[in-house]
Order: sequence, then structure tokens, then C-alpha cells
Amino acid sequence: MKELRIGLLGFGVVGRGVVDLLLTQTALLRERTGVTLRLVRIATRTPQRDRGLDLGAVELTADVDRVVAADDIDVVIELIGGLEPARSLVLKALQQGKHVVTANKALIATHGEMLVSQAAAVGRELLFEAAVAGAVPVIKVLRESLAANRVDQIYGILNGTCNYILTEMREKGVSFAAVLKEAQAKGFAEADPSFDVDGIDAAHKLAILAAIGFGSFPRFDQIHIEGIRHVSDVDIQWANEMGYRIKLLGIAKQDAGGVELRVQPTLVPVTGMVASVEGVFNAVFIRGDFSGTTMYYGRGAGERPTASSVVADLVDIARNNRVDNLQRVASFSTLPEYLATYPVRETDDWQGEYYLRLAVADRPGVLAEVTAVLARQQISIDAIHQKGRSAVEAVPLIMVTHATTERQVRAALAEMEQLDAVRETPRFIRIEPSFI
Amino acid sequence: MKELRIGLLGFGVVGRGVVDLLLTQTALLRERTGVTLRLVRIATRTPQRDRGLDLGAVELTADVDRVVAADDIDVVIELIGGLEPARSLVLKALQQGKHVVTANKALIATHGEMLVSQAAAVGRELLFEAAVAGAVPVIKVLRESLAANRVDQIYGILNGTCNYILTEMREKGVSFAAVLKEAQAKGFAEADPSFDVDGIDAAHKLAILAAIGFGSFPRFDQIHIEGIRHVSDVDIQWANEMGYRIKLLGIAKQDAGGVELRVQPTLVPVTGMVASVEGVFNAVFIRGDFSGTTMYYGRGAGERPTASSVVADLVDIARNNRVDNLQRVASFSTLPEYLATYPVRETDDWQGEYYLRLAVADRPGVLAEVTAVLARQQISIDAIHQKGRSAVEAVPLIMVTHATTERQVRAALAEMEQLDAVRETPRFIRIEPSFI
Repeated sequence: MKELRIGLLGFGVVGRGVVDLLLTQTALLRERTGVTLRLVRIATRTPQRDRGLDLGAVELTADVDRVVAADDIDVVIELIGGLEPARSLVLKALQQGKHVVTANKALIATHGEMLVSQAAAVGRELLFEAAVAGAVPVIKVLRESLAANRVDQIYGILNGTCNYILTEMREKGVSFAAVLKEAQAKGFAEADPSFDVDGIDAAHKLAILAAIGFGSFPRFDQIHIEGIRHVSDVDIQWANEMGYRIKLLGIAKQDAGGVELRVQPTLVPVTGMVASVEGVFNAVFIRGDFSGTTMYYGRGAGERPTASSVVADLVDIARNNRVDNLQRVASFSTLPEYLATYPVRETDDWQGEYYLRLAVADRPGVLAEVTAVLARQQISIDAIHQKGRSAVEAVPLIMVTHATTERQVRAALAEMEQLDAVRETPRFIRIEPSFI
Repeated sequence: MKELRIGLLGFGVVGRGVVDLLLTQTALLRERTGVTLRLVRIATRTPQRDRGLDLGAVELTADVDRVVAADDIDVVIELIGGLEPARSLVLKALQQGKHVVTANKALIATHGEMLVSQAAAVGRELLFEAAVAGAVPVIKVLRESLAANRVDQIYGILNGTCNYILTEMREKGVSFAAVLKEAQAKGFAEADPSFDVDGIDAAHKLAILAAIGFGSFPRFDQIHIEGIRHVSDVDIQWANEMGYRIKLLGIAKQDAGGVELRVQPTLVPVTGMVASVEGVFNAVFIRGDFSGTTMYYGRGAGERPTASSVVADLVDIARNNRVDNLQRVASFSTLPEYLATYPVRETDDWQGEYYLRLAVADRPGVLAEVTAVLARQQISIDAIHQKGRSAVEAVPLIMVTHATTERQVRAALAEMEQLDAVRETPRFIRIEPSFI
């Protein structure tokens, strides 16, 4: 019986899940791969064995070289996270002839192209299913199952923390700050939540999906990134009344004119599938020219779901190993020599419907002034709502546009902000149609 | 550049989609596999070139041996459907050293184990992603992406025709017969619809999923199969009022006591994801011990979606071919020598909640008689509804039970049927909790 000898870097939450899985399912994995997946050694800063697992013969060490450079390791699992030292260690492991499995979305989004070419150069695998959407196997699906399709849209709910916050804001009618505080207390959000709530984590995942789907690795700075800090409970309630939910979507679109890559709060119709993804769940929608739109849904984070995907990559390597085969599938699906570059569409050129919210004085003529601005910018209106009456305070004026460019929307709002009757900086949120 | 030479058996709807895809995406497929996927020849009973496609150098023949036994074919795609001659042709193709890709669920559900061992014996691939859920890549997901999990539940909406009919019945408040007639006129249902509406098609798919998920090939007669003919619009409306939808679910469950395999109309809570799968869409839910429940959703049939999955299998073979690798992944995930058998749980031993519908005389004491029967069978009741008043006609009495066995339910209903006040054979439908 062949054996795959595994070394682990990092023994945090996900690391614990991977160890638990490898120790629990040894027989099952052998039945499915023909190979024994043996965890040999874990490198961790604080090598304590007491993690509620029977580690048996598994060694613990504080010396990373005992994993990345040891002769008795075939595969290195990198679960340290962040760019350094993860990047250097992955590189070293590849140079030492190890396969690498990682859940590190920042690393792959930032250095994926370099690392993959390094892996190809040394004839080793670099796999990263767990980097996107936890247990949801969207990397393999995009790379293999949908490989016969020209994919033109990938979008989804890629960050469970943001989706949890937005769900709670809507259900309980409370502010972003209040929910964030509660989520931090419960451990659903980090003490420094900016990576999640500012959209960076979702953008890392979007970059990886776009690379595989479109056959071209985007520069990370080509992604337009907005988080959810400025989404107000007022917007959520208004959206709700008009039949929408507000979701933080990652969206990658490709057409003849180029590519749009963005992470931003978005209005989606309550009747579509994407609106029914609530709480900490992730969902990814992929549209192919033959497949149509398919959807993949599940837990996007956590000890056990993420471990499921890390070990799926080990299973791939083990199955390759069984038949002495490597690099069967290119990491970004397209073979390296065919990876392209494409023009990225400017924010201003995006087309779509928009939700606009103004705070206006409640007096005759205001609507005429505002709609005159829209007319000048050639924006037509699908719906308009004004609510509440007040002689002194501003009242909300909500409008939903027909399809227009973001350039027109920005120009109109800049012009409106100059109006006497407009009392706050106007806000806008993009609307996406129901994908399925 | 290597080449994969393809022969096609059957040139119906899906066959046309596969041909269209192979001719349209030749360059894309080469970029992703490093191999040219060349369609050489199509065997069809009526070899007419005029199908709205530019067939170029592709040959048409009425002689199946020119595909299954020709020297210039590496892979045979079987899209004839049904058991014979499909079975004999697939066997012959394998014996002639061809790989086989098929969308034939009846064939794999019935003869899968034999065909797979034949493929292994000759060192060729037998792949069948398109046999289950059209464009939704649930076979590969179960076989590869979730391979690190012990799967204990697989369930889903596996037949788009039934789901379309049930959706229409609810939305329009009309009978099964009326919707079926309309669906046949529109081409959504076959002239002989029994394969779909009696649950056989869904059961074929369930057998295949269970084989991969549980590592054991079920005998087809071990699956309890009910279709949707007896679902009345009355049940659908009552379910709706109580917060449920009625769906035809395929369900495979495994625990220490055995396996349950069933296709049957089921009440599901309207708040769960499975209830939001409407119309012709398919959805499969898979619960693994580490992954938790993940869901896969998309178009379950049709020319282009099915072609997407057929060609995904070709891509797998092409990528294997590129690195001279075969049988990397066992067809049913578990290696043949580890495939097990398991006890199948009797229908009577199933545990769950049930929806009961009686037609009773509208007079005092009826409720006491009915509930006395339930008490004798130790069935406790979660909700009870009676609606309408009539001195002459029977009125509906609806009950929802707490968890009980199907044995108890059947015994209670048999006893109730003997009551004077009960005017029709009582009906019951199983309730499944919201999976996610």
C-alpha cells in the first residue's frame, strides 16, 4: 500500500479540523484513494499536544524546516495564513520537492501566478480548494466540471461574516455597529474586522475564481472593493420594502469589451436564489454558455468545513500518486501558456440599475429639481418613494433607476448634492437582477 | 499536440448539444486540456447532416460499429439511452479499448457495477457526470470534492418534469392531469410520462448518487419509489397553508442501522432552501460529517446543460491522456475491492413526521374517534386542521404528526379507514425537516 506523508504548517482552528479528519477517516480515505494518508508532523509556534485530539505518533515541532525541508514529508499543508512567512515557506516546500495544499486566499490571490508556475517548474501540485468558500468545492467545479464552458459571470456571497451582519441588520432592524459588536462577542467576527467587513477577504476569493473562470490572472488592484460599513439600516429597510435584500456580492463579468471585477453591497430581488442565502453561508453562482447558471452553496468557513476541502486536495494528490500522475489539471484550469490578459472595465463604464437615497427638504419643487438633474444626465426612473413629512428635518427620497452607467449616476448625484434642498451626501447602491 | 478522437452514438437533443459544444469550443478545450478534442464520427439511425450545425469533416453513419469498433476512435459517447442496445454497445466499446462517456442513468443504475468493473479490467474510463442532474456536477463533487467525508444523507430534486408539474399545480391551483397535459403540449413532458412522473428517472439518479456516497451499489429494487400522480391540488393547498411545499424528493440516508432509499412526494418547510427550487431546476443536497450540508443547483436537463457535463467527462479523459494516466478516480469513488453491501431499512421502520389527510363526516365525536386511533398507535399530533362545514358531504381533516414510524402511521390509517365517519381512503405524505 502506498503512503502519502503529510506535514502541517499551523495548528489553529482549521489545522485542528484537518488533523481531526486525517486521524478519524484514515480507513475511509484509504478505501477511496488506495493510499494511506499519514500525518507525520505539525509545525506550530506553540507545540502543545493537548488539543482534544489523540495525536498518537504525530510529531509536533516549532521548527518549520522539519516540515518544509524534511525527507519524510511528501505534502505540506500551509495553514498559517497571511503573506509572510507563508509565501516563503510554500516556495521552499515546492523547491524541496513537496506538493503543497493551502487554504490561504490572500497568498493565492496575491502570488498565485508565481507560485503555480514554480510548482509546474518542479513538477509538483499546488492546490487550494479551501481558499474559496470553505466546504463548497467551487474551485474544482470551475476548473474541471465546467471546463467545457466559456464562463461569463461568476458572482456570489463569499464572506460569511458580512452576510451574517447584513442578515442580522435586516432581521433585527439594528445598525451595522451594533451587530458587529455582537458578532465579535460571539466569535463570528474578528477583533479587527476590517479584512472581512471592508471586502478584502471576498476580493481575494473573487480574484482566484476569476483567474480560473476567465483564464487570466487579475492584478489584485484591478478589483473594485467596497465593504459594508456604510450600509445603513435605513437602506436595508427601504430595500426590503421594495422587494430587495442587500448582500455583499463579489462579481466577475466578462464580455467582448473587457472584465468587471467588484466586491460591493448590492440590491438583489428577494425572489431570487441569492437573496435566500442567509447568515454565515456562502454561495457561488457560475454562468457558462452551455451549462447555464449553476449554484454552489454551503458553509464558507469553520474548522470542519474547511478541513473537508483541504483533505479533498490531499485526496487528489493521493489519487494522482496512486497512478503516478501529476499536474493533470492546470491550477487555473487554462494551461499556463494560454493564460491571457484582458482589459478591465472602468467603474464609470459599468451598466446597471441603481438605488439612490437622498435626504431632502420637504417642500414643493424639490422633486422637480431632483428629476431635472436626472433628465439632464439621461437617467430614467423606475420607481420613486418619499416617506414621512417634516417642516424642519430632511426626509428620505428613494429612487430606483433603469439601466444606466455609473458615470451618469455619479454625475447626477454630484449635481444633486449642490442643490439647496439636498441635505446630505446622496448615497447609491447597485442593483443586480436575479441571476436564477 | 495530442488528440482525443471522439465517436458519438445517438444524435438526438443532447447529442446535438454535444456536437455543437465540441465544434464551438475546440480552441477553448485545447487551452484547458492541452489536447485537441476531435469529433470524428456520429452513428445515428437517420444520418442526416441538416441539424443546423456546420458538421465540417464529421462523418455520419448508420453503422454503430464504425463508432464502437473503429480504430480511429479513442472515446465513445453513448447518448442512445435505455438499456438495450446501449448496454451491449458500451460493453463492446470497452472491449475494443475505447473510453466511454454516457448520460444514460438507467444504464448506470442498472448495470453500473458490471460496466465499471469491465472498464477497470480493460484499463479504460467509464464516466457518467451527465447521468445525474444535467449541468450540475454532482457526481464529481461527491466522488472527489467530498471524498474526505463520511456522507450520511443525499437528497434532492432530481426530476425537473415533476418539479415543474408540482410548481405549476401550486402556483395555478390546478390538478396534476391539467398541468401534465399542458406540459406535454409544451414539450416539457414526454407523451408517455410514466418514467418521469412515477419517479423511476429520479430513482435511477438516486441509485447512482447512493453508490458513490455510501460506497455500495444498491439493487434498484431496494429503492422505494412513489411518483406524483396521486398528489392532489388539495394536498398542495393544505401544505401551503401550513408553511410547506410538496416536492418529489429522492432521499438516501445511512446510519448504523442501515440505509433508506426512497423517491416520494414530501412536505418540506417553505423556509428551507429545497422549497425555493422551483420549475425545471434540479438541486442536490449532500451532508458530510466534516463538510456539513452543501447544495448544488442548476438545470437538470436540456440540450446545452447536459452537453456541458458530457464534455466535462471528455475533458477529464483528455487531461488524463495528456499525462498518460487512467482510472485515477474510481468510478464510484471507493475502490472496487472496498465496495460494501449494507442492510436496507424497511419502509415500516422509517422515522419521521407525517401529514395525514382524511375526508370525514362533519358531526360531533368524529375527532374523538380519530384521535383515539392515534392514541392507540402512540402517535402524537403537532397540528390539526378542519375546514368547511357540510351536513351531507365529507370535510377534510388534516393532521401533522410528531416523529413516528411509518408502521404506526399505516396501522393508524388502516384502522381509521374502518371508521363510519371516514369517507375516503386516508392519505399520508412524509415531511422532511429543512435540511439547510
